[in-house]
Amino acid sequence: MKQSTLLQLLVVSVLASLASSTTPSCKANVKGSSNTFWQDDYNFDDTAQGLMDAMKASSIDDYLKYLTSHPHMAGTSADFEQAEYLRSLWTSQGLDQVSIKPYEVRMSFPHPKRSSKVTIIDENGQVKFTSALLETPIEGTFYDETVAPAYIAFSANGSVESDELVFANYGSYEDLRYLEEELKINLAGRLLLIRYGSFFRGDKVLNAQRFGAAGVILYSDPADYSDPEGEKYPNSYYLPGEGVQRGTIVWKDGDSSTPMYPALPGAHRISEDKMDMKEMPTIPVQPIGFNDALKIMVQLSGPEAPPAWRGKLNTTYRIGPKLRVPGWKIRLEVHNEKKIVPTYTVVGFIRGEVEPDRYVIYGNHRDAWVFGSVDPSSATATMLELVKSYSQLMQKGWRPRRSILFCSWGGSEQGFIGVTEWVEEYLHLLSSRAVAYLNVDIAVMNAYNFAAAATPVLHELMKEGAKHVGAPNEPSMSLYEMWSTRRRFTKELITVSLSSVSDHAPFYQRAGVPCTYMSWTADPEKSDGVDYPLYHSTYETYDAMKNFIDPDFSHHLALGQLWAYMGIALADKPLLPFVVEEETNALKTAVDTLEAKYGAALAKRSISLAYVRNSISSFDAAAKGFQERLQKLDQSNELMLRVVNDQMMQLEKSFIYSEGLLHRSHMKNVIYGTSIFDQYSGSLLPGVEETLQHLTVFVDEESTSLDQWDDVRHQLSVVMAVIESATKTLQDVNIL
Amino acid sequence: MKQSTLLQLLVVSVLASLASSTTPSCKANVKGSSNTFWQDDYNFDDTAQGLMDAMKASSIDDYLKYLTSHPHMAGTSADFEQAEYLRSLWTSQGLDQVSIKPYEVRMSFPHPKRSSKVTIIDENGQVKFTSALLETPIEGTFYDETVAPAYIAFSANGSVESDELVFANYGSYEDLRYLEEELKINLAGRLLLIRYGSFFRGDKVLNAQRFGAAGVILYSDPADYSDPEGEKYPNSYYLPGEGVQRGTIVWKDGDSSTPMYPALPGAHRISEDKMDMKEMPTIPVQPIGFNDALKIMVQLSGPEAPPAWRGKLNTTYRIGPKLRVPGWKIRLEVHNEKKIVPTYTVVGFIRGEVEPDRYVIYGNHRDAWVFGSVDPSSATATMLELVKSYSQLMQKGWRPRRSILFCSWGGSEQGFIGVTEWVEEYLHLLSSRAVAYLNVDIAVMNAYNFAAAATPVLHELMKEGAKHVGAPNEPSMSLYEMWSTRRRFTKELITVSLSSVSDHAPFYQRAGVPCTYMSWTADPEKSDGVDYPLYHSTYETYDAMKNFIDPDFSHHLALGQLWAYMGIALADKPLLPFVVEEETNALKTAVDTLEAKYGAALAKRSISLAYVRNSISSFDAAAKGFQERLQKLDQSNELMLRVVNDQMMQLEKSFIYSEGLLHRSHMKNVIYGTSIFDQYSGSLLPGVEETLQHLTVFVDEESTSLDQWDDVRHQLSVVMAVIESATKTLQDVNIL
Repeated sequence: MKQSTLLQLLVVSVLASLASSTTPSCKANVKGSSNTFWQDDYNFDDTAQGLMDAMKASSIDDYLKYLTSHPHMAGTSADFEQAEYLRSLWTSQGLDQVSIKPYEVRMSFPHPKRSSKVTIIDENGQVKFTSALLETPIEGTFYDETVAPAYIAFSANGSVESDELVFANYGSYEDLRYLEEELKINLAGRLLLIRYGSFFRGDKVLNAQRFGAAGVILYSDPADYSDPEGEKYPNSYYLPGEGVQRGTIVWKDGDSSTPMYPALPGAHRISEDKMDMKEMPTIPVQPIGFNDALKIMVQLSGPEAPPAWRGKLNTTYRIGPKLRVPGWKIRLEVHNEKKIVPTYTVVGFIRGEVEPDRYVIYGNHRDAWVFGSVDPSSATATMLELVKSYSQLMQKGWRPRRSILFCSWGGSEQGFIGVTEWVEEYLHLLSSRAVAYLNVDIAVMNAYNFAAAATPVLHELMKEGAKHVGAPNEPSMSLYEMWSTRRRFTKELITVSLSSVSDHAPFYQRAGVPCTYMSWTADPEKSDGVDYPLYHSTYETYDAMKNFIDPDFSHHLALGQLWAYMGIALADKPLLPFVVEEETNALKTAVDTLEAKYGAALAKRSISLAYVRNSISSFDAAAKGFQERLQKLDQSNELMLRVVNDQMMQLEKSFIYSEGLLHRSHMKNVIYGTSIFDQYSGSLLPGVEETLQHLTVFVDEESTSLDQWDDVRHQLSVVMAVIESATKTLQDVNIL
Repeated sequence: MKQSTLLQLLVVSVLASLASSTTPSCKANVKGSSNTFWQDDYNFDDTAQGLMDAMKASSIDDYLKYLTSHPHMAGTSADFEQAEYLRSLWTSQGLDQVSIKPYEVRMSFPHPKRSSKVTIIDENGQVKFTSALLETPIEGTFYDETVAPAYIAFSANGSVESDELVFANYGSYEDLRYLEEELKINLAGRLLLIRYGSFFRGDKVLNAQRFGAAGVILYSDPADYSDPEGEKYPNSYYLPGEGVQRGTIVWKDGDSSTPMYPALPGAHRISEDKMDMKEMPTIPVQPIGFNDALKIMVQLSGPEAPPAWRGKLNTTYRIGPKLRVPGWKIRLEVHNEKKIVPTYTVVGFIRGEVEPDRYVIYGNHRDAWVFGSVDPSSATATMLELVKSYSQLMQKGWRPRRSILFCSWGGSEQGFIGVTEWVEEYLHLLSSRAVAYLNVDIAVMNAYNFAAAATPVLHELMKEGAKHVGAPNEPSMSLYEMWSTRRRFTKELITVSLSSVSDHAPFYQRAGVPCTYMSWTADPEKSDGVDYPLYHSTYETYDAMKNFIDPDFSHHLALGQLWAYMGIALADKPLLPFVVEEETNALKTAVDTLEAKYGAALAKRSISLAYVRNSISSFDAAAKGFQERLQKLDQSNELMLRVVNDQMMQLEKSFIYSEGLLHRSHMKNVIYGTSIFDQYSGSLLPGVEETLQHLTVFVDEESTSLDQWDDVRHQLSVVMAVIESATKTLQDVNIL
């Protein structure tokens, strides 16, 4: 046991003894008061410190052990069992309300009888090779007969047999264009071999569809997920050759049978054949490990792949398209089935004492592809410890000023389905009442760099919180200090690019709710630089976490304490700890980035960014004016406090535009969004950027008409309108 | 001078003398307080009574005289002059802020050189008849050389010459189908003669386009606008044969050059050729008076029109299509021009003392087709008197609890353009801060029946207010008593069908803001039953109002006092005077109406309304629970008061759905909307109803596939989702 953990335990026991001496009148006192919160006996710093100190690394360890004891894929009985576990745990811990919301949603599963696979067939029709259905069990490590075969959720079904295969590197749009334009290999109707990594797998498949490919084989290259010469799992956290990355490839979040409305009982289900084909994958896709990938790669003929495309399979990387042996063929077959089944969202609620209709929302998904010791159970275990600590505070008579929610989402791995349905069901309440959404998907994927993303108003709180948290295994250092030196993003400590990488996506994209997201990651500067080798494989077990990633759970704890600090600050501080001037910086960066990337193309069509820049200047003035008025605010006037808090709470919500983006109308936030080439990457002014990309990437820019560029002007006008709206939200409340 | 007016004057002078003795500390007192409003010296009933009593009929008369002294069409210099007048008046009266917002919007005007007209040409090409450009000036009545020619805003330009013309009655969908199916007259490519009345003229033209007609001549039949045997203007308020009704025919409100975003400086303008042709008229349309209509009607041959189609022109009504004299032709030519010009919205603001960020909004449009003594200046004059009375209250030290806005819209006659742009600009603030919008378009069109429409939460307030107002010329009777006997709508006193008849449309359709709308109208049971004979003609002058419609302005005053009562109740009562249970009744009526109209068609496709009915039951329970909690509310707790007020204020806003209706995506309120056959008629569950109409009216219902009926299921699911959302808004604030 380390010193810091021991100290924490001591503090907890001291606090626990204090708790018993707290008189019941303390709570009653607070209830009657609405003018000065907690009267004289409340001290925020002490309360927050108590909340953080009561969290224990060893307890997170215990929770993780439970959570990873079985595979818990969405839609399975294990999914429901864990939901029930959370409900009963949180109920016993004294939360005010706990409920399970079962959403019946369309999900994609391996066919129970027909196997999806890649085979190589010789000139006589004999099968020479068949890819593994799933990972080989490894002696002495976690295993379970309920592990599902490796598959790609929402892959189209089908069988493609061909004497050709093209290696397409990561499958980026540039990679595929290089194949077509430089190597003159037409991809239409062909099978592609694409390596995992660098960006969202769904966008690899979307690119393949854009070029008319017939099917995709996805594999994990040792260069991206392993250490070819070194030890592999179970002797290190590197992916062994048998490991296969599962995953979804849908690029529109939520239940596809109830698009843009919640999957409530009785809701109409849009049949698949009525859906826009742009919205769902239309070609078969199957994942394999690198042992199997090698067996396929060696069959390729054609030119050698360019140096940057070569991974670390022990062979020469060739492009294809012909197989090496005449007459041999490669066959990809996928047999998935889509079913409408329940997935369970658990919500725990602590009612706010002073402003019960203001919601501070914690969230994390619960479903995993297999054991999920990293994704998402490292964060689920941390959230459970967090809730426990909150419940201990409640036992001592504390009640938050604002309500706090703890959400455990189901169906996220298939495309953030549970959370999207919940956001759709509660959209109006979130728009009018949500203060912030604090999301963690993976607490610790690798214990080196602390990576954080947040919408601008929460940046300062995140930094402030990190100053109150101790760095893992560095007793003399704060998390903030460690983070500042081991930062993930070179330019800024926190990125505004939240993207669609996790469950926060529907919160900020549909409702404009301010969000944070964080995780411990690898050091990208280091030679191996592999963040998360066992990602979505069967080998992502408790052992891997305990033996190699965060053995003492100190990184879990530090992240959990920051998570705790942010939540209690948002829930308890009478004046919301938002900094609105951070928004100005983000808006300026957004338009500067746009200008840097597309300035020449815009200038050529006489499209000016001046009006948008003017709007940002007005916003800047409004933000400064707001800060000045805050200085003079009489915080004992509860209604005036509510007025300014509402202004801050509504600020980022003014970026929501009902019509959405021009090419992705379901995305309603026109300031912060997601790249059209990578759901895991952010895009600033996404409606403007995607329109520009449609005019410069998908077509020859020179062939576009001036008229087509009007779409860009249109999107800029919408951006201007929402910035003006944000300005009005912050200005003194006169409406002229 | 009548006794009641004298009394009012006395009260005003007494109050004015009290004002001077009010100590400045009164205001300061209030400013510091946020727990008990107005401390001990405030009495709502007295304050509201003072506000109402200070209003004077004679002063409304004076304001109307000024407002109607010149034509004040949108986009003209007179429009701007009146805007400036209001700004300077309101500024001098001491409102906290007054501003003019000029929106540059696309409007449609007569071509300055080329005349739009209908001509009859004989077999030699000689013109036998040309319709009048505008009304003949009448000796001794208001006239002005700036009167614009009679025209139809947003008519397409063009010239159609034909030896055929079809009389199509009111031009309803049923009328046109009767012509095609019963009389076997194909309307495609033909000119139609259609009479004004019964529903929105734009829908007459839309129907004509649906059947492929080449052009439309609109005329005012004496049966609908005059008294064929009796006196006409200037000797009565009946339309003379020269009078022509101007008007717009657009069926999508707001600036067509900036659809769904505000026309801010620098905003991109969508060119007309990029617009969806379903959104703008594509055929020429010209209006004429009944003198000219008679000259055209006598030229028609063919069968006699069915009895119900016959008006009171002094000739036999024939259907056509052939003209009576072989070789003669009729020519319709329209020369409009669309220009982007400014129209001015004036906003006056009184800052709320306790909750400045809550907005009670008064509104009325200012632009008229000509002199506009009825539409809209009767209401503008009343609003000016209202503002004057509020300002007198302010001089006595009163400040409202919540902020009050007075809005004078420009460009409404062309399609609610100014108000729509304003709502688009302030959409986010309205969604989060607007309490209600109190609209009057025409105060007095005819001084008999009081007609009122409102969204449900405001019904009770409207009735309550009417009990505090004296009936015009009936000193012993309240307005409520008169209204109850002389009710416009037979079933209910107040209809929820607000439709798109006036400027409230964007408020409830885009932002879900609770709205009221009211007017004095004719008695539809009476033999003449003509509401508003001089509608949109040059003869709608001050003389007409003063001599025939409301000579003593007592009806103006009564309406104005009710308007005053509702506004100050919404602004000053600590607990918002909303009744949420009224919403249940409206929802039940909505689904009952749907079932009555379409129950058989739905049952045939096994489409159940049970889930929607269940949602309404849940809503009912939530509304009742809310009312019960209100009983126990400690109103001295300002924050808890704010919580329940916010719940009420957000209730109807939860009916807003970002994707809008299936066939009219710009309409976002899925509970209250507008008929697809008449913008002036309301529709409950408009997305469901329009979808059903598309399946049963535009096509042969028997030929539809079951698959097509999924659209109905989809729309019902959206309805269910917003009702569930309304339920959550009212439930105790736990979010589970």
